[in-house]
Amino acid sequence: MSENFLPTESYKGVRDFYPEDMAIARYIFDTWSKTAESFGFARYDASILEPSTLYRAKGAQNEELVNEQTYTFTDRGEREVTLRPEMTPTVARMVAGRSRELSFPLRWYSIPNLFRYERPQRGRLREHWQLNCDIFGADHFTADVEIIALAHQLLLDFGATSSMFEIRINDRKEMHEIFNGFGILDSETQNQIIRLNDRFHKVTQAEYEVELQKLISAEAVKKVVALVNSQDEGNESLVVNGLKALGINNVKIDRSLARGFNYYTGTIFEIFDKHPDGSSRSMLGGGRYDNLTSMFASEKISGIGFGMGDVTMRDFLQTHNLLPVAVTTTSPTLMILPLDTEQNLEGQKIASQFRQNGIKVAVNIGTRKIGKKISQAAEAGVLYTLVVGPDEILSSTFALKNLALGTTETGTLDSLLNYLLAHS
Amino acid sequence: MSENFLPTESYKGVRDFYPEDMAIARYIFDTWSKTAESFGFARYDASILEPSTLYRAKGAQNEELVNEQTYTFTDRGEREVTLRPEMTPTVARMVAGRSRELSFPLRWYSIPNLFRYERPQRGRLREHWQLNCDIFGADHFTADVEIIALAHQLLLDFGATSSMFEIRINDRKEMHEIFNGFGILDSETQNQIIRLNDRFHKVTQAEYEVELQKLISAEAVKKVVALVNSQDEGNESLVVNGLKALGINNVKIDRSLARGFNYYTGTIFEIFDKHPDGSSRSMLGGGRYDNLTSMFASEKISGIGFGMGDVTMRDFLQTHNLLPVAVTTTSPTLMILPLDTEQNLEGQKIASQFRQNGIKVAVNIGTRKIGKKISQAAEAGVLYTLVVGPDEILSSTFALKNLALGTTETGTLDSLLNYLLAHS
Repeated sequence: MSENFLPTESYKGVRDFYPEDMAIARYIFDTWSKTAESFGFARYDASILEPSTLYRAKGAQNEELVNEQTYTFTDRGEREVTLRPEMTPTVARMVAGRSRELSFPLRWYSIPNLFRYERPQRGRLREHWQLNCDIFGADHFTADVEIIALAHQLLLDFGATSSMFEIRINDRKEMHEIFNGFGILDSETQNQIIRLNDRFHKVTQAEYEVELQKLISAEAVKKVVALVNSQDEGNESLVVNGLKALGINNVKIDRSLARGFNYYTGTIFEIFDKHPDGSSRSMLGGGRYDNLTSMFASEKISGIGFGMGDVTMRDFLQTHNLLPVAVTTTSPTLMILPLDTEQNLEGQKIASQFRQNGIKVAVNIGTRKIGKKISQAAEAGVLYTLVVGPDEILSSTFALKNLALGTTETGTLDSLLNYLLAHS
Repeated sequence: MSENFLPTESYKGVRDFYPEDMAIARYIFDTWSKTAESFGFARYDASILEPSTLYRAKGAQNEELVNEQTYTFTDRGEREVTLRPEMTPTVARMVAGRSRELSFPLRWYSIPNLFRYERPQRGRLREHWQLNCDIFGADHFTADVEIIALAHQLLLDFGATSSMFEIRINDRKEMHEIFNGFGILDSETQNQIIRLNDRFHKVTQAEYEVELQKLISAEAVKKVVALVNSQDEGNESLVVNGLKALGINNVKIDRSLARGFNYYTGTIFEIFDKHPDGSSRSMLGGGRYDNLTSMFASEKISGIGFGMGDVTMRDFLQTHNLLPVAVTTTSPTLMILPLDTEQNLEGQKIASQFRQNGIKVAVNIGTRKIGKKISQAAEAGVLYTLVVGPDEILSSTFALKNLALGTTETGTLDSLLNYLLAHS
């Protein structure tokens, strides 16, 4: 390529959505929407631009996130701006801003695009879309049950079965109580163990134990190792039993689950793909936080929510062969083919008539020969073609061709329109 | 507000979409989509992040745009990145990138958010969404007819009538021919007049003439002034006559129309709101460009398209009272009201049963008294409530209340589910 010309690639680590990719993205977003709304969740959104202070507010760990992992720049008015890396601070800001007017419990969802400045790798692009669902102002355990049931239903609504994935649950508050029971009383040590658990599945058992030994006694190490390796069906868990009451059984307690070291204070959960090719990927995660709005001058508002990314979702659907073929078709139902450009305007008039009756129709107003136009229509996945030439116009008789079946219906435009309406 | 707390406002010049605003935005986007797809347009998208070089390629005027009117910053890899201020360069990049595989004429649309760094004012925010529709690879005038017919139909599909707005058309090529006929032969002078025309409606007639006199002879000034003030029904225009053949009559030639001074080379058009309160706002504009992909190493591809902003669209709908009330309702159909949190889980089970039959249902799992829960449901615009208390559970008999009518239907869950399915 000459250096005088610009490259046609997108910016590094982001995606172009050509129509066939856009169709898949829309299928995912529309299914997410429909399921969330069936649970009474209302959709919100905000700009991708947020004041950087929103991400610095939660202490040193976020400071690092803002400085090293986000797109942050100074605008021409000397304001520091960040492209949102997650939606929770934004939704906290919005809920706090109207906390007196909003009616709780509040169910909100959004499908924002999020930006992270990191090395592009499978499933971790610099920009991705993420379904965010939250219930605000409900402390009862049935909120935890509902949000997990919603996550479960989301996958079912794509055609997944419960056997394809597993819900793993833990509870931050219970973990602290268990550590207390083990005689690990120092809360900072407890937090360090949780931080270490976050890496439990990324290191070997031996490495994990070596790290634990730096924090606690040999006896306590044994107890913690037994804990994180334990199999627990959750028969004593209100949340697990609540899910089972709703017919959701692919759930277990996983004491190694940590969900990073952030604002969660109670129930935390993740959903894992069980497909042998899927290498037990985490597809979705979330949890309960006590005080979402503490950084704003707002009354205390608790919440529970989760996030689910579009890249992981698409991977899951492809791995399990759950993407309907029809999803990727973006073609109109009918393609009108003027024999020559002389008939283009007549073609447009016919298209307009069919369109007014709810049929998706395009006109091939190009200059190619009719045979080529027919093969273009076939390649594009168009269902029907209708040739418009001088003879057809003169006789007011047209031929509607079904490209899949190879059949042809002949008649006036009105009769063909009725035929199409009856057959689509 | 204490200085320890963060403000809850959004970043300057962008919008938060609370559910009622999001519902309006989605109504606009969905209607745009539906109409564009009825014309056989396929949806695409891309990231908001683009290499800045994409906007610098078209010469000094764009250099100024990039430097002064865009969000441009340097990423951590020393790449210069711009938040897209318009979609045309992006779509040109994408079409050029696959020009050999794509089938022309190509009809594509997108609803991107676009960023401009400018002083926030009515209808001109720093971020807005814009419908972009383009036909690529069709030089025939019926492409021009179709794209304008699509713009016209978009407004009709919101419930507008043709009398509410006016389509104004001009043609860049014809303007140059007319100037040649006036004896204004220098092409740079011709361009300067077009640039001046772009400000025709923003200055007085006298100011306009003073500026013209700096460019051309007094005799030529008279001709140009007569031209831009002329009333022309377009009886000699192929495009205008083509539109009339499709039943579109609210169209006229406007020789003052300039559409900025950018890449247009043929037909240009705008649609104006005719409402007396609307001060003849331009709602939508576009035109034909000869070689969209010249900056890439691609074969030459022509196109015609337009853009239409969400803020202007919403203003138009509100001015003409065209926003359906139901659009802003984001509530579920049924709200289940546990008498006490003791019945929350039973409420969730009932919700799950109703949901599996396609009904949107939420459960008020909060701690308020039942009377307050009923008024919350009424305020939220919920249609039906169903109270779940110990008596209802014991007797398996529930009361479904229609909040709008004040009527109550009593029966088993199965009978109430059937009632709801028959009445929604």
